[in-house]
Amino acid sequence: MPRINGERLLADLRRIADFGRYQTGVHRPHLSPQDVESRHWLAGRMKEAGLEPVIDGVGTVLGKSTKAGPRVLIGSHSDTQPRGGWLDGVMGVIYGLEVARALSEDPETAHLAVDVASWADEEGHWGQMTGSRSFVGMLSEADIDKARHRDEGTKMRDALKAAGLEGVPRQHLEEGRYRGYLEAHIEQGGVLEASDKRIGIVTAIVGIYAYRLTFSGIQNHAGTTPMPIRKDAGVAMMRLYNEVMEIFPKIAGPRSVWTVGKLSVEPGAPAIIPGKAEMVLQFRDVDVKVLNGFEAALFKIVAAHAAKGPCTVECVNLSKTMPTVMDERFLDAIEDSAATHAAGKHMRMPSGAGHDAQVIGLKLPAAMMFVPSIGGISHHFTEDTADADIVLGCQVFADAAARILKGN
Amino acid sequence: MPRINGERLLADLRRIADFGRYQTGVHRPHLSPQDVESRHWLAGRMKEAGLEPVIDGVGTVLGKSTKAGPRVLIGSHSDTQPRGGWLDGVMGVIYGLEVARALSEDPETAHLAVDVASWADEEGHWGQMTGSRSFVGMLSEADIDKARHRDEGTKMRDALKAAGLEGVPRQHLEEGRYRGYLEAHIEQGGVLEASDKRIGIVTAIVGIYAYRLTFSGIQNHAGTTPMPIRKDAGVAMMRLYNEVMEIFPKIAGPRSVWTVGKLSVEPGAPAIIPGKAEMVLQFRDVDVKVLNGFEAALFKIVAAHAAKGPCTVECVNLSKTMPTVMDERFLDAIEDSAATHAAGKHMRMPSGAGHDAQVIGLKLPAAMMFVPSIGGISHHFTEDTADADIVLGCQVFADAAARILKGN
Repeated sequence: MPRINGERLLADLRRIADFGRYQTGVHRPHLSPQDVESRHWLAGRMKEAGLEPVIDGVGTVLGKSTKAGPRVLIGSHSDTQPRGGWLDGVMGVIYGLEVARALSEDPETAHLAVDVASWADEEGHWGQMTGSRSFVGMLSEADIDKARHRDEGTKMRDALKAAGLEGVPRQHLEEGRYRGYLEAHIEQGGVLEASDKRIGIVTAIVGIYAYRLTFSGIQNHAGTTPMPIRKDAGVAMMRLYNEVMEIFPKIAGPRSVWTVGKLSVEPGAPAIIPGKAEMVLQFRDVDVKVLNGFEAALFKIVAAHAAKGPCTVECVNLSKTMPTVMDERFLDAIEDSAATHAAGKHMRMPSGAGHDAQVIGLKLPAAMMFVPSIGGISHHFTEDTADADIVLGCQVFADAAARILKGN
Repeated sequence: MPRINGERLLADLRRIADFGRYQTGVHRPHLSPQDVESRHWLAGRMKEAGLEPVIDGVGTVLGKSTKAGPRVLIGSHSDTQPRGGWLDGVMGVIYGLEVARALSEDPETAHLAVDVASWADEEGHWGQMTGSRSFVGMLSEADIDKARHRDEGTKMRDALKAAGLEGVPRQHLEEGRYRGYLEAHIEQGGVLEASDKRIGIVTAIVGIYAYRLTFSGIQNHAGTTPMPIRKDAGVAMMRLYNEVMEIFPKIAGPRSVWTVGKLSVEPGAPAIIPGKAEMVLQFRDVDVKVLNGFEAALFKIVAAHAAKGPCTVECVNLSKTMPTVMDERFLDAIEDSAATHAAGKHMRMPSGAGHDAQVIGLKLPAAMMFVPSIGGISHHFTEDTADADIVLGCQVFADAAARILKGN
């Protein structure tokens, strides 16, 4: 059984957190100078681990094993949210590196091959999971031509050029090279902590449907417009939102979530009746039937409110990502490993957040593993995981990888 | 009976609209260069009408009659909303000027005295009805020291200095000088038009109570936080708003209005559960008992929601202005005049908007008169009133002023 080196693992994690350090977290959006620097450092560490690293045409770092196989691909992302945490998702990348090293160091597993990937732009500053989508053939050159930074509006082509990646070929999934794909990540929620568990075995990654709802009424003076003749777009929004909150629980799955994270009224002055209102509703579930049920219910609510008036309602789908079910044999391997190293401290659970595994999982058998997030905090510089949990997770992960590679 | 000169009235209104013209409307916030220019022009027209004009230390233009009396004060404001209409509220100022002229020109009424005022800053760029409040002694020098432009943050003292008004004394209400105060204004709503009336006789100006409601929950990831443990501040706001809309109609007066014109959630991203939400609720009525009933109901709703959780709710009163009831004898005089000039085309109604008359009305018997707003549009450069209605309104107003001055 491979033994990971906990000190080496933590040292690598602390070192890469130097690139873009922000308070106790990291600010390292994809293709920022700090991100580019960190990718070169990572490629260097891969080389030292005996892998053949390449930084490809969108910025993905892929460290290829020179061994004959069997082979698995282990990856996650090393770009971060703005002022994000130090482990999301670089922990999974360094896990891959440490698993490759640990397997090589154990004579019993030295023949087993691991490729390690840090996927470009998982956090979606230039698109959506740009690196993993490029790897599986879901990103065209035209997509890259069009891609602009979501906040700054700069061209991805210009950023790639500045990073020295202009004209560099992209890496693509090589048919038959891998038994499958593994990804470890911090949970980003509080379920493990609340359940007193240390290892989460991810059964599926939720699908996400998102909609923009736009309400149009008539902007008017809040003093001189009698209630009966008002067309208040803010009231229309509130009433529809309220009905969503009444109806969705009745048709939800056991772990469904739905959220209005963004809403606004125009012009937004205390003494003016809003003439326009807008909200974004998204819902997530591991079961596409539940997602379609939510959508049908939403369309029915929208139609009823539009018919009733007095405001018009427009509902536009913004995005749909399908749920990805993880490979059952891989889950068993992670579970067996967890039973060995963390008996009674592991549980199966869905992932409510999106991950590169949902993209790679379209082409390869895939599985994911979570470690606890302290206080469930995520996408914030105070995000953290106990050192002991980081080390334990990597050991479980290494053992699981060995089991998968040794399996028939 | 005094006869107003409709052409002169319209010519003056069109001339003053040159100061700050914006498309079909006017952009003339108080103490802007265009506003200051227009005040000098207005003072000049007052002088030509035989009045003694003064621009006082906050920018109010007061044209004093040299006649012995009896005397009324007629006023409104000539500052505008940003990119506002051409008649709100300068029409009432020019009405005052025209009434003074018409009375002087008719031997039967030439002895009757009218003072004319254009109150500074009715639109509240530097405070709230700064000019009329100053006039009745509700504005201290310290208030002026503190006053800053609501959008630009500049000091009112600096703006007064730039306008050449540094050290200029303020005009104050002279005890016993007036029988009362009259103000004409565009309706700013669609009630007259919908009722096929041309003259509105304002029975009372509504009081306005305003509150900021702040909801605090826990900001979290919209994918990884299960529904049962969420503390979504946006949901808390929506639920409370919904209850206000259920309960307020049951305790409302016949012309009560209530409005949420401003609301927001933080951080306002589709995939983040709002940790904070805020909305501003205001309600208006002519009856203080109704206002207090709304407040009591609001406090009860807030307490219930705070007790139920999961989010905290804070409710802060932002302002309270009391309803102002108009003088019944003045209303009768306007009504008699309207019956003469616009038989069957007048109605009594409350004012849902605030006006200087609610301030001056604290110290003097006061009355207001409305003319129709086309399409009910207000606070927008497309605001308008038919020329015939402008002229008719001034004739009704002049006759009413004469009746009031001739009465015992």
